[in-house]
Amino acid sequence: MLAALAARVEHGVFGYSSPPEELRSAIIEWLERRHAWRVDPSWIVFLPGVVPGLHVSARRLLAPNERALVPTPVYQHFKRALELAPRPHTDVPLVLQKGRWILDSDALRMPARLAYLCNPQNPGGTVFTRAELEQFAELTRDAIIVSDEIHCDLVLDPAARHVPVASLSPEVSRRTVTLMSANKAFNIPAAGCAWAVVEDPRLREAMTADARAHVLPSPSVFGYAATLAALRGGDAWLAAQIDYLRGNRDLVQAELALPMAPVQATYLAWIDARALRDPHELFLRHGVALSPGEQFGAPGFVRLNFGTQRARLREALQRMKRALRSAG
Amino acid sequence: MLAALAARVEHGVFGYSSPPEELRSAIIEWLERRHAWRVDPSWIVFLPGVVPGLHVSARRLLAPNERALVPTPVYQHFKRALELAPRPHTDVPLVLQKGRWILDSDALRMPARLAYLCNPQNPGGTVFTRAELEQFAELTRDAIIVSDEIHCDLVLDPAARHVPVASLSPEVSRRTVTLMSANKAFNIPAAGCAWAVVEDPRLREAMTADARAHVLPSPSVFGYAATLAALRGGDAWLAAQIDYLRGNRDLVQAELALPMAPVQATYLAWIDARALRDPHELFLRHGVALSPGEQFGAPGFVRLNFGTQRARLREALQRMKRALRSAG
Repeated sequence: MLAALAARVEHGVFGYSSPPEELRSAIIEWLERRHAWRVDPSWIVFLPGVVPGLHVSARRLLAPNERALVPTPVYQHFKRALELAPRPHTDVPLVLQKGRWILDSDALRMPARLAYLCNPQNPGGTVFTRAELEQFAELTRDAIIVSDEIHCDLVLDPAARHVPVASLSPEVSRRTVTLMSANKAFNIPAAGCAWAVVEDPRLREAMTADARAHVLPSPSVFGYAATLAALRGGDAWLAAQIDYLRGNRDLVQAELALPMAPVQATYLAWIDARALRDPHELFLRHGVALSPGEQFGAPGFVRLNFGTQRARLREALQRMKRALRSAG
Repeated sequence: MLAALAARVEHGVFGYSSPPEELRSAIIEWLERRHAWRVDPSWIVFLPGVVPGLHVSARRLLAPNERALVPTPVYQHFKRALELAPRPHTDVPLVLQKGRWILDSDALRMPARLAYLCNPQNPGGTVFTRAELEQFAELTRDAIIVSDEIHCDLVLDPAARHVPVASLSPEVSRRTVTLMSANKAFNIPAAGCAWAVVEDPRLREAMTADARAHVLPSPSVFGYAATLAALRGGDAWLAAQIDYLRGNRDLVQAELALPMAPVQATYLAWIDARALRDPHELFLRHGVALSPGEQFGAPGFVRLNFGTQRARLREALQRMKRALRSAG
């Protein structure tokens, strides 16, 4: 990737530019090879980031009175996008079933124009199974699906496999907007880009209106170059990265005496600390800054980002253990 | 700049990042040295581009029923921002006075909550004088001013001097949002960033709300690096660039037998082709794609971008002369 970026610097021209066609091809090859998902080049539209894409989806795919289903707990930007749009929403609680956070199917039956999905789930760490996704698609059959799959290349559980919801069937594909980026798997949020895969021309038109009007900026040429390099030459690096993260995950799960679902994907552990009083503050006092559960709509939980050097993670876990002893 | 970008590539870490403090300092030094404008570090907020900044200003500084004044003709994104917000607007016509396109002062007396300014003017090429800006500020004294000054470092007329409208007085500064970027002067729109200078904390809060909520993405780290390198080490390059553009401008004005105001700034010639039938189409048939005046709200005019190699410009001018002969 550094070589590709250096070459783009050497190129030396940074005037107005379009996304390189070869990036579109690289995405198509990547999705087919890694996720058994065939997409047409015309379905891919570039966005400067997945979070701006969430905002666009809330504003452009929903009329002001139309309602969205949102899994909860979830990465805070889903609800923020709906609140700022503003659009009404109904929470779909995640329930712990056989050690995995899955969506409450009764809540999925609520009427809505759009159903958000976050798969792999942030912060729950779930990789939804094909059967679970089929049930999701069936229960939301009258809705547009917007699926944030930014963590799809960070599956740690060797038994799990990411299934893009849009790959389930032509019917699901036609009503789904899938948001993706190499930014998480390759850790390039300050240099990357994002894209949406949208088969339906009307949904695609709605998702690109803001970018066409320059309400949203285009990704930088370096975002295209970094992403292309990652998808073209990043397999070995990513395999090593996943191995390393898996080791970190195992360490977190072995060391921490707090309930948490095994993390199937992402580098985020979703920890049930409801037994503690103000757990975020407690761990912070002991020198570890976790994301407070409130941020995701689940007070009493904390989210630990274990995407770091193992030595640093060990130190954090020692501090957290001291915090637990002090509270016990 | 290439060395700075290469160094940023070498750095190799592209995780979440903040704008470098030294960029803020470089902007402050640049504004003081080149434009005699002293700004406080806290007044500078980063945006991914000036056009997204126009959209933010229309949506965040105006309530739905509040009206803006917009110069016309003007770079199309001003009106687009208002139409998409949507917010009502009143046109302020540019009038040709002593060979310069200036704002019609009667129209500036119309009631409005916000007055847009584009200085240097695109497409008119005017560098507004201090006296003209003082009159503008006086006539819009009850309004917020949003001033796009992205071409401020491309002043070609040695007798003209860019005056940031916010530098006129503390009173004007307190109600002005100035949008700036190195993207035009250094031709790095695909790699750059933009910023707003906003003294008033409430206006600044409004201008940054979308970026804070990630409705807008942050500029890429390469945008910061390229801009920093341009401002720190770009004087000589820019002086040569301006010299070259001045030569191009002189060539356009000498060769084309069509009325146009002398271009004081920008690399854009605003050509009065109302004597021709469908001038955009005519020139296109002869192999020169100009921006049609309709785009700026002025049918019959065309805008020529002369920011190119002189040989290419000569060729374009030859073709345009052939087009004129064919029409004559």
